[in-house]
Amino acid sequence: MAAPLTHETIKDGWFHEKATLWPGQAMAIKVEEILHVEKSLYQDVLVFQSSNYGNVLILDGVIQATERDEFSYQEMITHLAMNSHPNPKKVLVIGGGDGGVLREVVKHECVEQVVLCEIDEAVPRVSKKYLPNMAIGFQHPKVHVHIGDGFPYLEDKVNTFDVIITDSSDPVGPAESLFQKRFFELMKNALTHNGIISTQGECMWLHLPLIKEVQTFCRTLFPVVEYAYTTIPTYPSGQIGFMMLSKDKELTLKKPLRKWTPEQEAKLCRYYNSEIHAAAFILPQFAKAAIQE
Amino acid sequence: MAAPLTHETIKDGWFHEKATLWPGQAMAIKVEEILHVEKSLYQDVLVFQSSNYGNVLILDGVIQATERDEFSYQEMITHLAMNSHPNPKKVLVIGGGDGGVLREVVKHECVEQVVLCEIDEAVPRVSKKYLPNMAIGFQHPKVHVHIGDGFPYLEDKVNTFDVIITDSSDPVGPAESLFQKRFFELMKNALTHNGIISTQGECMWLHLPLIKEVQTFCRTLFPVVEYAYTTIPTYPSGQIGFMMLSKDKELTLKKPLRKWTPEQEAKLCRYYNSEIHAAAFILPQFAKAAIQE
Repeated sequence: MAAPLTHETIKDGWFHEKATLWPGQAMAIKVEEILHVEKSLYQDVLVFQSSNYGNVLILDGVIQATERDEFSYQEMITHLAMNSHPNPKKVLVIGGGDGGVLREVVKHECVEQVVLCEIDEAVPRVSKKYLPNMAIGFQHPKVHVHIGDGFPYLEDKVNTFDVIITDSSDPVGPAESLFQKRFFELMKNALTHNGIISTQGECMWLHLPLIKEVQTFCRTLFPVVEYAYTTIPTYPSGQIGFMMLSKDKELTLKKPLRKWTPEQEAKLCRYYNSEIHAAAFILPQFAKAAIQE
Repeated sequence: MAAPLTHETIKDGWFHEKATLWPGQAMAIKVEEILHVEKSLYQDVLVFQSSNYGNVLILDGVIQATERDEFSYQEMITHLAMNSHPNPKKVLVIGGGDGGVLREVVKHECVEQVVLCEIDEAVPRVSKKYLPNMAIGFQHPKVHVHIGDGFPYLEDKVNTFDVIITDSSDPVGPAESLFQKRFFELMKNALTHNGIISTQGECMWLHLPLIKEVQTFCRTLFPVVEYAYTTIPTYPSGQIGFMMLSKDKELTLKKPLRKWTPEQEAKLCRYYNSEIHAAAFILPQFAKAAIQE
């Protein structure tokens, strides 16, 4: 009989998410059973079954997804971009190895192809085993998976994608380069003339200087640069934002260009709807003052 | 030399907020120094200096306010109600013993009198010592403080207050009765003909059945019943909601009737502005389906 799995972030039956990116605070989640522990080529991979949040995927000690609340992030990072574009046919997802963004992208029937470029093969492999409701995204016939670094993948892509979604971890570890100007230049070149980008944009309650920095170089590259956010209990401070970019100044992002009917929204979504699309761009005064003025 | 203070919720230098109202999850905050420990007549009172959230007030093991993010809650529970009323002159705050809501109410120059009815004298006493930026609300000449239970206080008040704000803890312990129908009947009687109520309404990510229950009996009492929310990192799951009630069906609450200028907003507020007022009523699909339909 194998010894029970252990992990340094789990003590006395609770996982604690401590990190230098959010000093002095930690989300704690009660663990029922550790399901998977691995040092992949790129990061520390942990999956556990929690008492109240379903299965939980942790990379380098940071919560990536819980089965209970992942829908908020996956729906918002995807549909804010997809419903701001008049007719997205070809979509690129960078990161997103759990499959959740793929699951959302293929809800748009206009999509002809969606490519996932994930650096770490361990993430899809583990997600297919332990996060089936997210990894279901891999099963769709329109999905193509490329395991590799987003940088070289983008180098020779010109005028190719209508929407690019960067579903990355934080700017420490393998995702650090995804928050740099060169990466946004590569994405810009890979976009079609009216292409749209949505990237994991960190939390307004924690990372205004980083958000401001990314926004500042994005404004030198794109005519439309916006920040939106969603609520999600298990991300640090309970929210996460998205840097939203458009190559076409007519595509303003803040209101959905395409809308599902209320019946479709009720069927397809648990977080996103056309009203929350617009509300996601309305920032509290402290964030508005820092990054919208 | 006195022994250092200790508290059962603080271990290895970290406070953990574990409670049956949010099983399997806990916000953890790093503690620099325990400042105050007391069993008051009504509850367990703890104040500590944290490493990154300033001073923190804990009642019965639950975070009530941190100096870093309290403004979100205080501004939103107050200004959503105050700016929905055409001319609020007399205001009642039930609970709110830290003084933060008082601080916000007196920002409205039309206010002639604001009464605070707080059951536990320990909360104002401790807040004046350790949370001076909140307790500053007690210093305003328009403020009157009544230490006592909100129930008997309201019994003989008829047609008295333009706005009532119930800034309570959770429905376990001294605040339990503040989530019951009888309390809302008393508040209704105490309101003027076009009076407005804002109450701490719990979190849509955690407590939809409770929110639905309160909403259901409120609909038998008030023509306008709405739920709004704000983001706040140190409350469970990072959000808290407000049950918003109006006696006048013309006062729909969802848009501010009175607005500050952008310059006034920048000067007076750190979270609230007229756009976030409206956005606060826009709910994600899962919450909309549960409590708006």
